[in-house]
Amino acid sequence: MTPRPASLQPLRAESVERWDHEDDVVIVGYGGAGACAAIEAARAGAQVRVLEIASGGGGSTAISGGHLYLGGGTRVQKAVGIEDTPENMFRYLMAGGDGPDEAKARLYAQESVAHFDWLVELGVPFTDAIWEDRTTLQPTDACLIWSGNEKAHPFREVASPAARGHKVARPGEAGPELWVHLSAAVDELAIPVEYDTTACRLIVDTRGRVTGVVARQDGRELRFGARRGVVLSTGGFIMNEGMLRNHLPLLHERLESIVSHGNPHDDGAGIRLGISAGAAAIRMSEMFITTPWYPPSSLTYGIMVNARGERFINEDCYHGRVADAAFAQPDGRVYLIADDASFGRPEGFELELAATEGSIEDLERALGLPETTLQHTVAVYNANAARGQDPLHHKHQSWLRPLDRPPFAALDCSVGHSPYIAFTLGGLRTLPGGEALTEDGGVIPGLYAAGATASGLTRSASTYCSGQSVGDATFFGRRAGLSAAIAEPAR
Amino acid sequence: MTPRPASLQPLRAESVERWDHEDDVVIVGYGGAGACAAIEAARAGAQVRVLEIASGGGGSTAISGGHLYLGGGTRVQKAVGIEDTPENMFRYLMAGGDGPDEAKARLYAQESVAHFDWLVELGVPFTDAIWEDRTTLQPTDACLIWSGNEKAHPFREVASPAARGHKVARPGEAGPELWVHLSAAVDELAIPVEYDTTACRLIVDTRGRVTGVVARQDGRELRFGARRGVVLSTGGFIMNEGMLRNHLPLLHERLESIVSHGNPHDDGAGIRLGISAGAAAIRMSEMFITTPWYPPSSLTYGIMVNARGERFINEDCYHGRVADAAFAQPDGRVYLIADDASFGRPEGFELELAATEGSIEDLERALGLPETTLQHTVAVYNANAARGQDPLHHKHQSWLRPLDRPPFAALDCSVGHSPYIAFTLGGLRTLPGGEALTEDGGVIPGLYAAGATASGLTRSASTYCSGQSVGDATFFGRRAGLSAAIAEPAR
Repeated sequence: MTPRPASLQPLRAESVERWDHEDDVVIVGYGGAGACAAIEAARAGAQVRVLEIASGGGGSTAISGGHLYLGGGTRVQKAVGIEDTPENMFRYLMAGGDGPDEAKARLYAQESVAHFDWLVELGVPFTDAIWEDRTTLQPTDACLIWSGNEKAHPFREVASPAARGHKVARPGEAGPELWVHLSAAVDELAIPVEYDTTACRLIVDTRGRVTGVVARQDGRELRFGARRGVVLSTGGFIMNEGMLRNHLPLLHERLESIVSHGNPHDDGAGIRLGISAGAAAIRMSEMFITTPWYPPSSLTYGIMVNARGERFINEDCYHGRVADAAFAQPDGRVYLIADDASFGRPEGFELELAATEGSIEDLERALGLPETTLQHTVAVYNANAARGQDPLHHKHQSWLRPLDRPPFAALDCSVGHSPYIAFTLGGLRTLPGGEALTEDGGVIPGLYAAGATASGLTRSASTYCSGQSVGDATFFGRRAGLSAAIAEPAR
Repeated sequence: MTPRPASLQPLRAESVERWDHEDDVVIVGYGGAGACAAIEAARAGAQVRVLEIASGGGGSTAISGGHLYLGGGTRVQKAVGIEDTPENMFRYLMAGGDGPDEAKARLYAQESVAHFDWLVELGVPFTDAIWEDRTTLQPTDACLIWSGNEKAHPFREVASPAARGHKVARPGEAGPELWVHLSAAVDELAIPVEYDTTACRLIVDTRGRVTGVVARQDGRELRFGARRGVVLSTGGFIMNEGMLRNHLPLLHERLESIVSHGNPHDDGAGIRLGISAGAAAIRMSEMFITTPWYPPSSLTYGIMVNARGERFINEDCYHGRVADAAFAQPDGRVYLIADDASFGRPEGFELELAATEGSIEDLERALGLPETTLQHTVAVYNANAARGQDPLHHKHQSWLRPLDRPPFAALDCSVGHSPYIAFTLGGLRTLPGGEALTEDGGVIPGLYAAGATASGLTRSASTYCSGQSVGDATFFGRRAGLSAAIAEPAR
């Protein structure tokens, strides 16, 4: 791999004397978004070339769990009896805070079944089975999982709960299996992929149209012409410390306690290249963040409290929504309080046991929480839970049970104690078709973005669900590839 | 005024056949930042021209309270016995959350006294007196005011408290008075100001250098050449609904309940023009927001609670820091709870009285708060206050007094009930000298930004103090003007 230069400012097209390669569509970044863009562009008859900085493809899609957030009535949903419609899915996507832009959410919900079918046609396997227990990654090859906030307040009041996390059929992490099929399709279409090729600058003509990419390969600087369009799909910027400092100051400050999820090339190159051509980057201070504090699902009967001994969210939310709220608590200090009936050691990774005591009063003291605070919180919680109510945070009654069986335990979910895993959600502003936009909403001709390079289907940790990254990357990657392929050629 | 076109994409310099005007420095936007940039550029010997979309100058500076956040030992601080040093001021600026970038904070603290003296030399009057009572705007011409979080946790533990809000000598709002002196200096230097002139596009040469501005005037499109540099100082984007939707979704969603503070031309034009030339916009989702719930200062003895009956901040913080936290509470629902000893009607604007009752239990019921929550909050607060402590939120002991004198009142500080006033803080990434930067940190030759167009001295509502906008605009405006004036000419 050739390192990327510090500055990615554009090259003027008029200074290009000859193209080293000239194609219809040049795709920068060969992960889930890039592969799907390539497939659709080639199928639409375009001559396509993919540039990839690494020595192999896959990006963050290939290291993912292999979930795709799909619904509206997929084959698997129907087979296991999950009722869903595009309209119901759309309502869900728009609920609970800062969701996607409406046009993207509507298209995604409307075309979700078709996207599932498209993947099946590519040969991606899905098993008609559901894993019902609340978990982060089903250990078997069962396809469906409740991978978001569908059954939790306030989502459940807005949309009828439906499981939508579709995992590719493989036990455990299934990202590699998904990649096998995406890359096989690219190979079958004989789309050239230039590995170890570092995109450095966009090439922009006098009218502001993007017409190609300057990239380094084997120590040489090559000009890749793109008659119809360039698709940026290089991932997000979780590995770029400077960008994190610019846009995610709290994450940057706590970076030593964070597991940055992605691959070393998630350096925001696509976003920076887009900006260099006048594209707007939006929601740049949004990230996905989680600390997977369950399974075991029994911990959901517990309560999450901050350093003031107060609850701050309904604990039956998706772990990412809970963790996002936890990360924002004072000093990121958070404990999961469980009693003997609900306690279980988190599976898959270590959570420190901060204290175990015979009474809540002793636990409060052991944790150094202000006097009477945890006692009051538990007393109120228990009194309401006994009546099947949670007027403060609206945890579903199926998870309400007084915490009254000693001993009591506090699992330390604090930043710096529990592993917090993060990746970025902000990126280039695009139309649902992938066209990159200026801050004013103008289309930049010849420029497209998809995957984590774009501001996509989910724009905040508070609404993110497992499967939305790969879902978004593959779905909108396809559209960006198609849009580029059918664009009027520059020459 | 000519309306701005929808798209502000750059014009290539090579297409400019002749300049309608050609100067060393062209300044876009004639508010506090633009005026100070013009003064310093002209004093450095540059030929300067200012373009202003409105029919008169002043921008948001002229409609401000006329506070400048200055310290480190100004004449007024010394006269009234406030001890401060540049190092102490620097520590304060960096405390309490997402403060300014370190280089800007250091320069600002170091040169703050000199900036005060510079203003005095311009003829800006300051009275050697301090207004000690906690308020938002001193009604007299007394200069100094405690305009931030200096005496509140966690700031007071980091830096020795010092009053730094310097108001120009005029009773009440003093922004107009400040503008009189800034604009007089511009006039005295005979700097041409083109009013009713709408900047539409930057002019960029083949090397990416900004060399001028396209602007509309009297229905004609003129080319203003800038041999040394263009300074963008058009304010923030609080009046641009599309940009608010892109970057401040929660504010956008609640826009009907918001008082947008600024002038109609705070449409983000400078930021958009900067992006069009490849500059990065950072912290775009940060805003200043406040609901000025005091004076009377006695309300600070009260407690602020959310819809769960919980406190969420130390109430002795600056109103903006309190309001920022309030805005983020569930549904923006917040009450100020006071007893008979602390109650007072807020001055200057109406706050609804949500309820008055003879007991906290009745108040809790009247507000519809979950049972026992407010009672517990007040009981804990009172028990600690009686001991001069606030272990939960660290309000200073001078503001701690049990709330135990009925009747009890709840003032409605909720979004939609209390007026929330907002303006934007995000903007172009710049060096302390005003040079605009790309996302990679590269300097864009010929491009400078200052005032609310740049990401400046304060980057979040949680650390903002009164006087930082005008302080930043005038201080960094000067530097941007000087940097442009001494830059190597493009031609």
